[in-house]
Amino acid sequence: MKNILIIGAGKSSSSLIKYLLDKSNSENIFLTIGDISKENSSKLILNHKNAKAIVLDVFNKTERETAIEKSDIVISMLPARFHIEVAKDCITYKKHLVTASYVSKEMKTLDKAAKENGLIFMNEIGLDPGLDHMSSMQVIDGIRKKGAKMLLFESFCGGLVAPESDDNLWNYKFTWNPRNVVLAGQGGAAMFIQEGTYKYLPYHKLFRRTEFLNINGDKYEAYANRDSLKYRSVYGLDDIPTMYRGTIRKVGFSRAWNLFVQLGMTDDSYTIENSENMSYRDFVNLFLAYSPSDSVELKLRSYLKIDQDDVMWEKLIELDIFNPKKKIELPNATPAQMLQKILEDSWTLQQKDRDMVVMQHLFGYEINGERRQIESSLVVKGENQTYTAMAKTVGLPVAIAALKILKGEIKTPGVQIPISKEVYEPILKELKNYGIEFTEKEVPYLGYNPNNVIG
Amino acid sequence: MKNILIIGAGKSSSSLIKYLLDKSNSENIFLTIGDISKENSSKLILNHKNAKAIVLDVFNKTERETAIEKSDIVISMLPARFHIEVAKDCITYKKHLVTASYVSKEMKTLDKAAKENGLIFMNEIGLDPGLDHMSSMQVIDGIRKKGAKMLLFESFCGGLVAPESDDNLWNYKFTWNPRNVVLAGQGGAAMFIQEGTYKYLPYHKLFRRTEFLNINGDKYEAYANRDSLKYRSVYGLDDIPTMYRGTIRKVGFSRAWNLFVQLGMTDDSYTIENSENMSYRDFVNLFLAYSPSDSVELKLRSYLKIDQDDVMWEKLIELDIFNPKKKIELPNATPAQMLQKILEDSWTLQQKDRDMVVMQHLFGYEINGERRQIESSLVVKGENQTYTAMAKTVGLPVAIAALKILKGEIKTPGVQIPISKEVYEPILKELKNYGIEFTEKEVPYLGYNPNNVIG
Repeated sequence: MKNILIIGAGKSSSSLIKYLLDKSNSENIFLTIGDISKENSSKLILNHKNAKAIVLDVFNKTERETAIEKSDIVISMLPARFHIEVAKDCITYKKHLVTASYVSKEMKTLDKAAKENGLIFMNEIGLDPGLDHMSSMQVIDGIRKKGAKMLLFESFCGGLVAPESDDNLWNYKFTWNPRNVVLAGQGGAAMFIQEGTYKYLPYHKLFRRTEFLNINGDKYEAYANRDSLKYRSVYGLDDIPTMYRGTIRKVGFSRAWNLFVQLGMTDDSYTIENSENMSYRDFVNLFLAYSPSDSVELKLRSYLKIDQDDVMWEKLIELDIFNPKKKIELPNATPAQMLQKILEDSWTLQQKDRDMVVMQHLFGYEINGERRQIESSLVVKGENQTYTAMAKTVGLPVAIAALKILKGEIKTPGVQIPISKEVYEPILKELKNYGIEFTEKEVPYLGYNPNNVIG
Repeated sequence: MKNILIIGAGKSSSSLIKYLLDKSNSENIFLTIGDISKENSSKLILNHKNAKAIVLDVFNKTERETAIEKSDIVISMLPARFHIEVAKDCITYKKHLVTASYVSKEMKTLDKAAKENGLIFMNEIGLDPGLDHMSSMQVIDGIRKKGAKMLLFESFCGGLVAPESDDNLWNYKFTWNPRNVVLAGQGGAAMFIQEGTYKYLPYHKLFRRTEFLNINGDKYEAYANRDSLKYRSVYGLDDIPTMYRGTIRKVGFSRAWNLFVQLGMTDDSYTIENSENMSYRDFVNLFLAYSPSDSVELKLRSYLKIDQDDVMWEKLIELDIFNPKKKIELPNATPAQMLQKILEDSWTLQQKDRDMVVMQHLFGYEINGERRQIESSLVVKGENQTYTAMAKTVGLPVAIAALKILKGEIKTPGVQIPISKEVYEPILKELKNYGIEFTEKEVPYLGYNPNNVIG
């Protein structure tokens, strides 16, 4: 019997654990789920005979080492910054490691040691990063195999609320960490390249330069991710003239979100005096000019030039941000934390709500003097509040990869991400059994030419 | 004979040195001017018998210590970050120190040692900080002495081109470090308090929330400085309901400067690939959407919603930023560095140009149930390219303070800024002889009520 240690039993571990438990008899595996809260782990195991929950504080060296030593492979579902100590122990005790997080600098330095010990340290094998790498590389490798030249790669992903649970004006609810949503796009200009021209977009314009997407007949929008340029080397597309990655929202979200950005409400760099006792209305007023007589509402409308029949105004009203009685109740909070509090009132998923993950890639290429384009799209819906689309799309690739590593089907050692055929092909194949399948179609080649203009 | 060591013979040292040389016979002082370039120092001495120029590399411990040991007082006109080693030597060799820079944390830690040795470490005694502290504190102390309560303090300062040399559409030229002008306002939200309400203004809105000022009959505008809140404790005005500090420009500057901010051209956080070979036009295009056919001009106008008869458009044209032939010629440059290069073509002071420094304070207070307001204004013009208004207003307070410390007229030891009567009163008095004099007048109390609205 092989032992799999899973560290971290948060939201994203549900589908991962279910997959492995369902296979535990046929594959002869036993799961140990370590979390700081035993309740978290127990909830996901449901008394299955092939699993046990343990308390594991990842900062407790002895607890961590003991658990890792007993395992055959380790899956770390902790936040990215906590992986490194686990990874070092995996070198010491010669265990494979799987994470859904970006490869950190520290993680990268373990590559040599991992290879010397024949260990596979598989990272970025969740949804984004993860499924995006695998599904893109499969198409890109196919295009290259035909002898074609890549001209364009655009890739979009978003976590949304499913249409049947979409009941607010923003067409949005928090299906993942709300803090990341509030801070999205901060920390520097977005960078990408279109038709050979570098483009740089400052944060305060990010949500006003969106693009429209059509996915399975539905219209979406996307705003640019931070650094699309670095993905050129990741995918071996160093000379590609167009490379753009973006985040998907329902149409109209970004234009309204931009109001918060313009006001300065998403700033996380300073704290507000007396934030605890402020009302939602006080919070809004912090960002508006002083007036001895004008209302907060009128000041905001005038400042941001919102017409009274503009749906953006209805969106603000729906959030109840002008309420003088509701208190923020967070001491020493940053504007971003205060805004998050207000949004959570309205955007928290309810028990009956289902989420949805949407992804789309566009691949432009040239073969025999002819330009072609492939569009590849994915829509996955959640089953309920436990087995969400997010948990499935993050957790299943991790689980499948872990089992294939354990069984020796994935062999190449080293610190890596899932961009080789050995990895993505069997995983993408198995994901189809779980309803995670891209629809590919040939479309006319457009290049990056959003308005289809003939120059 | 007493020895004054002046370290740094840059632009801001001209009036400082001239003042001290003019007094050198009557006051029996000798000046040693240390600069990395002997040429710089010699130019300002003009073979005066009471001064000599030496080469002084402030990073050379021996050179630095030798020069400091021989002096009776040290004036450091170096950039702020270079003061600390000089200050430590001043403790070692028991010398007074004068600088025009903000008190750094490291400088503050020397307070105890300075006091123990009876040494005066006078900082922030240039223009801003410096003249602003002194002229404000004189009025504030006067108001307090009457038993009145301060209700409002607003303070504005700007370095501008004199009207007779003001020959461009921006009504602006670089009269000080251009880099600081391009980066002005970055690094966090501007914070201030108006009528007891905290206000926070993000950088991308800073230049769209200006206020108008009337100074000696001329209309100006001001944008908010970074942190006005901290000045409450500096001036002993912890409970004041309105505290606002701003930077003065000619009307219309900020609205046009905002175009650069909106585009992202003032960003100094990343470098542009191949910046060296880019044309001004290429630079502009980096921040605009890709189009296979539309011109850079039209894309910019549409993006920023500039009407074709808007003077903002003329301001951009005047800078020649759409020129496809002029090259940036700076390798690995940030957008801010590239923008600075373009602006320097147009905004560099010419030999015949004169500069101008403008300052205004507003003091609101209540006495015997009556509310009053004092307006205090200063306009100083430069004589030529050497004895600029900036050099006079920065250098003369430094020089006067140094001489008064040397003569024992300023006595209180410790690391300090010029907010005590002992310091500001004699200095402000003497500055009048050099045309640096504030005009004070009583005006009706308005409070912070920019549109004079009756609530």
